[in-house]
Amino acid sequence: MEKLYKTIDSICPPDAEVFNAALKRLAEQARPAGSLGVLEGLSARLAGIAKTLDVKLNNKVIVICAGDHGVVAEGVSLFPQEVTAQMVYNFVNGGASINVLARHAGARVKVADLGVNHDFQQDLPIFHKKVRKSTSNMAIGPAMSREEAVQSVVAGIEIVEELLGKGPVDILGTGDMGIGNTTPSSAVIAAISAIEVEKLTGRGTGIDDQALSNKIKVIERALAVNRPDPDDALDVLTKVGGFEIGGLAGLVLGAAAHFIPVVCDGLISTAGAMIACQLAPAAKAYLFASHRSVETGHRYMHEHLGLDPLIDIKFRLGEGTGAALAMELLDAATRILADIRTFDEVAIVNAQLQ
Amino acid sequence: MEKLYKTIDSICPPDAEVFNAALKRLAEQARPAGSLGVLEGLSARLAGIAKTLDVKLNNKVIVICAGDHGVVAEGVSLFPQEVTAQMVYNFVNGGASINVLARHAGARVKVADLGVNHDFQQDLPIFHKKVRKSTSNMAIGPAMSREEAVQSVVAGIEIVEELLGKGPVDILGTGDMGIGNTTPSSAVIAAISAIEVEKLTGRGTGIDDQALSNKIKVIERALAVNRPDPDDALDVLTKVGGFEIGGLAGLVLGAAAHFIPVVCDGLISTAGAMIACQLAPAAKAYLFASHRSVETGHRYMHEHLGLDPLIDIKFRLGEGTGAALAMELLDAATRILADIRTFDEVAIVNAQLQ
Repeated sequence: MEKLYKTIDSICPPDAEVFNAALKRLAEQARPAGSLGVLEGLSARLAGIAKTLDVKLNNKVIVICAGDHGVVAEGVSLFPQEVTAQMVYNFVNGGASINVLARHAGARVKVADLGVNHDFQQDLPIFHKKVRKSTSNMAIGPAMSREEAVQSVVAGIEIVEELLGKGPVDILGTGDMGIGNTTPSSAVIAAISAIEVEKLTGRGTGIDDQALSNKIKVIERALAVNRPDPDDALDVLTKVGGFEIGGLAGLVLGAAAHFIPVVCDGLISTAGAMIACQLAPAAKAYLFASHRSVETGHRYMHEHLGLDPLIDIKFRLGEGTGAALAMELLDAATRILADIRTFDEVAIVNAQLQ
Repeated sequence: MEKLYKTIDSICPPDAEVFNAALKRLAEQARPAGSLGVLEGLSARLAGIAKTLDVKLNNKVIVICAGDHGVVAEGVSLFPQEVTAQMVYNFVNGGASINVLARHAGARVKVADLGVNHDFQQDLPIFHKKVRKSTSNMAIGPAMSREEAVQSVVAGIEIVEELLGKGPVDILGTGDMGIGNTTPSSAVIAAISAIEVEKLTGRGTGIDDQALSNKIKVIERALAVNRPDPDDALDVLTKVGGFEIGGLAGLVLGAAAHFIPVVCDGLISTAGAMIACQLAPAAKAYLFASHRSVETGHRYMHEHLGLDPLIDIKFRLGEGTGAALAMELLDAATRILADIRTFDEVAIVNAQLQ
């Protein structure tokens, strides 16, 4: 608990002076003002965070938080719980979707077990942060205790610190793995926003109409049974969250506390980011939305956070796949700011060459 | 003329068998079906074009076609015509926006003079394909002769052939430079689609309300004076097009004829692609839309072509900047198809490691 609040208190705003210098340089570049759209503002934000106009995102890391969910007993997912552990092995072995897209983005992939219902060998190269094997079924009671909720968030913070202990991290992407975890994620946004559950609930890995209708009822029941306090993010996490969602919140807090921009992926990662930003509103300045998922609740999460996702290409996979793609665009944004010449610079170079 | 029709006739459809094999592999991968959204279909299209499931886009080239426009006499642009030539030098010197984004995407930038109102030294490393110094003012008569229209399209085809003469090209991006060229581009979609000019006309580099209202009237006058035949793409190009728009059409035809996927950039590049696809509907199978520009006409062009742009981040610069970013996503798409393991492959690898 102490570590959590110490981290929250340590989050400072990015450098406003560098941010403004970035906006000035962008406006002076030899192109119509504003013509590089969304990337301009993002490049200025990255500059403010890194405290330089020449931001280098050389060390990219994507952390996938994995956990299982007791609520799968209610038939909310197409896949059995065992798949969570199988996918952890698949990530470690390098053959999953996120490995492929992270490789393309030049990012390392790290996996963290926050609560997978499986005993991993201790020498498996993952972050061993298991809170407990699977949450409890939130449709009949709290998913976890408040102590476990804090433990999961602190685990996320520790992961950032352990990564930094081994070398620099210039940008962090968040990803998730956990069969059934769109259900608690939709419950988290429902609890915080009070928007109708139906609007916030999607098909996850691909359930049919009947299963979707059941999933909505399950979330409604979980909210009715647990009555999470919308003003207490830890209570929301405790009652209707998940261990990996807590870990994802901790990643955002840890990144913000260490001046690292953090790119959140899909519905589950963004649920974690919502918990983080409610615990520490200052963390939002370090947060970037990667993509808009097919999951209907995602749009409401972005609205709640006041973030515009960079990409909208109908991803619904998680793992950090959207974050990986967005990292490439953010990397491009840093180059726009640093490398496009101003009208003055162009005039000098052209004069030399003509 | 003969070369143009020879090229059009030589365009064959991509390989349907490889395309279908790609769809099969995507469906067998260890992830929920369809979970990588838009990138899945694109990866299959790229596979069909390259005739392999392991597409390698190692040789990326962006060609910027530049030209000037007589219609600037009507006050349709914020910048003077001289800027077109200045930007050509800036591209060659490597300091423009497209140089920065192409470098990020690992693409080479090539510039082609189709009709810039400036005498470039013959040793300047650009494609010297000048049809004429600037089109005529389309508000009072045809922008060019039909012979010049054909010449500009053939020049685009020749550029592809000359590039291929020096080495492989795995993917081609199109870009444009030409002060005033959103005006003919909006006129091209207006002529072909018969949608009201007002809906198709944007602010270009940033004109104000009054100038926008004038720009709409100028386009309406150009259409009334010239009466381009919507069923004759060469007539549309002749009456209300531009030399670089013809060149951009030729790039699409040349790429399609040589089984090269071609990524078109903003309003001007897409105007060229519309001309190309009307001349040779088979070329559409090789065409990819990169981004949706702020220019309102762009959306209608994509609808007309039946293409969904990959990115929507409020770019309005041209030069190929959107194409460069989209190339990175298309490159990622090729890796998705080739490198993500199927359920069978995962089972084998996991069994070896557990």
